[in-house]
Amino acid sequence: MNVTELLSPVANEMPAVEQTLASVAEVQYPLLGDLIRHVMSKGGKRLRPALVLLAGRSFDYNLSKLIPMASAMELLHTATLVHDDMIDNAVVRRGRSTINSVWNSGTAVLVGDYLFAKSADLVATTENVYVMTLFARTLMRICNGELRQLFTTFDWKQTREDYYEKIYGKTASMFATSTESGAILSNAPERVTKALHDYGYNLGMAFQIVDDILDYTGDSDEVGKPVASDLRQGTITLPALLLMERSSGENPIKRLFESGRVEEEAGLTVEMIRQAGVIDESFTIAREFCNNAIDALSELPHGEAKRSMMALADYVLERTY
Amino acid sequence: MNVTELLSPVANEMPAVEQTLASVAEVQYPLLGDLIRHVMSKGGKRLRPALVLLAGRSFDYNLSKLIPMASAMELLHTATLVHDDMIDNAVVRRGRSTINSVWNSGTAVLVGDYLFAKSADLVATTENVYVMTLFARTLMRICNGELRQLFTTFDWKQTREDYYEKIYGKTASMFATSTESGAILSNAPERVTKALHDYGYNLGMAFQIVDDILDYTGDSDEVGKPVASDLRQGTITLPALLLMERSSGENPIKRLFESGRVEEEAGLTVEMIRQAGVIDESFTIAREFCNNAIDALSELPHGEAKRSMMALADYVLERTY
Repeated sequence: MNVTELLSPVANEMPAVEQTLASVAEVQYPLLGDLIRHVMSKGGKRLRPALVLLAGRSFDYNLSKLIPMASAMELLHTATLVHDDMIDNAVVRRGRSTINSVWNSGTAVLVGDYLFAKSADLVATTENVYVMTLFARTLMRICNGELRQLFTTFDWKQTREDYYEKIYGKTASMFATSTESGAILSNAPERVTKALHDYGYNLGMAFQIVDDILDYTGDSDEVGKPVASDLRQGTITLPALLLMERSSGENPIKRLFESGRVEEEAGLTVEMIRQAGVIDESFTIAREFCNNAIDALSELPHGEAKRSMMALADYVLERTY
Repeated sequence: MNVTELLSPVANEMPAVEQTLASVAEVQYPLLGDLIRHVMSKGGKRLRPALVLLAGRSFDYNLSKLIPMASAMELLHTATLVHDDMIDNAVVRRGRSTINSVWNSGTAVLVGDYLFAKSADLVATTENVYVMTLFARTLMRICNGELRQLFTTFDWKQTREDYYEKIYGKTASMFATSTESGAILSNAPERVTKALHDYGYNLGMAFQIVDDILDYTGDSDEVGKPVASDLRQGTITLPALLLMERSSGENPIKRLFESGRVEEEAGLTVEMIRQAGVIDESFTIAREFCNNAIDALSELPHGEAKRSMMALADYVLERTY
């Protein structure tokens, strides 16, 4: 099944999300409108909005609250990408030039800020104070994770806990807030709301681990960046962490980072990672998170939304880009 | 009267605001705490928090809502300064090194983002949806104004309306939201809430105009930056606008910007501005905004809060740095 089929229980609502996202660019100042259209028209999978809707699908499916919330999560995601690309000096994102490369870094900062604000504005239309707090705290967690990543660049002294903290901030916190807010806005029972939070969290952790695996194994043309781009930029993800844990002799990541020739020698480390079996082990860990996600769904009533979320957990492990 | 005396009706509450601001740095990740302390310990005038409190002082003075709101306005202000300094590559702000100069631009972006999120989190504790929407829209207006400024750098084709739009975004929107939110959270009558919004708006416009005048007339040591730093960076403020309006011959700002020798020739333009009488005219315009601010206060019950706000309007015109 492809993603569109997987998300079929909420397919009828996705055009309303797209419409809300498109309306964000309808602003008085034409240039700001152009900038927003530039970053919004990427046609991504809209996974986060779909999670908001799927989480609410089995309960009071209150679209007047769920559509703004779903749109806000996509905007939040987009805003963080705009700032990330600026921080990383990235030139291209999914085949499209970044704001910082076409305009400049100041513009990227301000467009990201505007999108944060607009997403908070959309969340406020739900009139649900708990969800608004959840949303603000999610952004705090994202920043916390990003700062940790920034300050541990080319630092080989990192643990698995550091890594989990970072991918929680980067990805799992947004997935967890998507499902939890969808549940809350649909008046799901508290127990189920907690379960949907856990589902989102575990799905997000698995999603990011697979992303990090694909950085080592993926076809660089499909992924759109060179193999091991994380490692080349000094970011240690799960495969590299597991390689360090397994190494009995000299720490290969330490050697790479201290060589002063990271770009030239990265290929050798990639080979070690591919041959050491740590890719399989990384998948095993991702699978554990997916199993936790599926276990959490046991609290949910049976139906197409639940089936879709189960299938999504499988999809996360199988995707190749 | 100095500012501290002016703000005496809310002096007892200001330590609670300071305490809330200090608590923002109490986070799990030590480095993030250090970064927040670095930007928060500037000991500014805390004008925006004081405005929130003053606006509520004559009504249900509900401190459990007003203190978080007041703190949130200061955090929002701080967050915009952190991002502004990064965008302008500023090295020093009020005698203290900027985040982007001590650390790097990525850190500045993330710290600013974190402070935006934390301020939204504080606003959410008021449980007032209207105020939360107001807050999100204020950030949108700020970004809108900043983007306009960024995209009109070294562009001499600007009108007074462009300028007003920018200083509304930069300063008056935050002042207006401070007073309006203070009124709302204290259950002020709707008519008075509107009046307090107008007071904040007009005070903020006057405040920024005086700031822009001081950039031409201030003692560069007191102000902490060279005279006409705006003009040197290609930003046209009210004095330069009025000079253009008055010039019958060649547009002196156009000539300056097109000379390719802005730094060398700025002194000449500053002399023209000082001699053309446009500084006085700028003050006259600032005074009109202050008069509007004072007029708006007629809706307010008599008392020390009202007297303080009246005096604040005079202070704004008299301050020299």
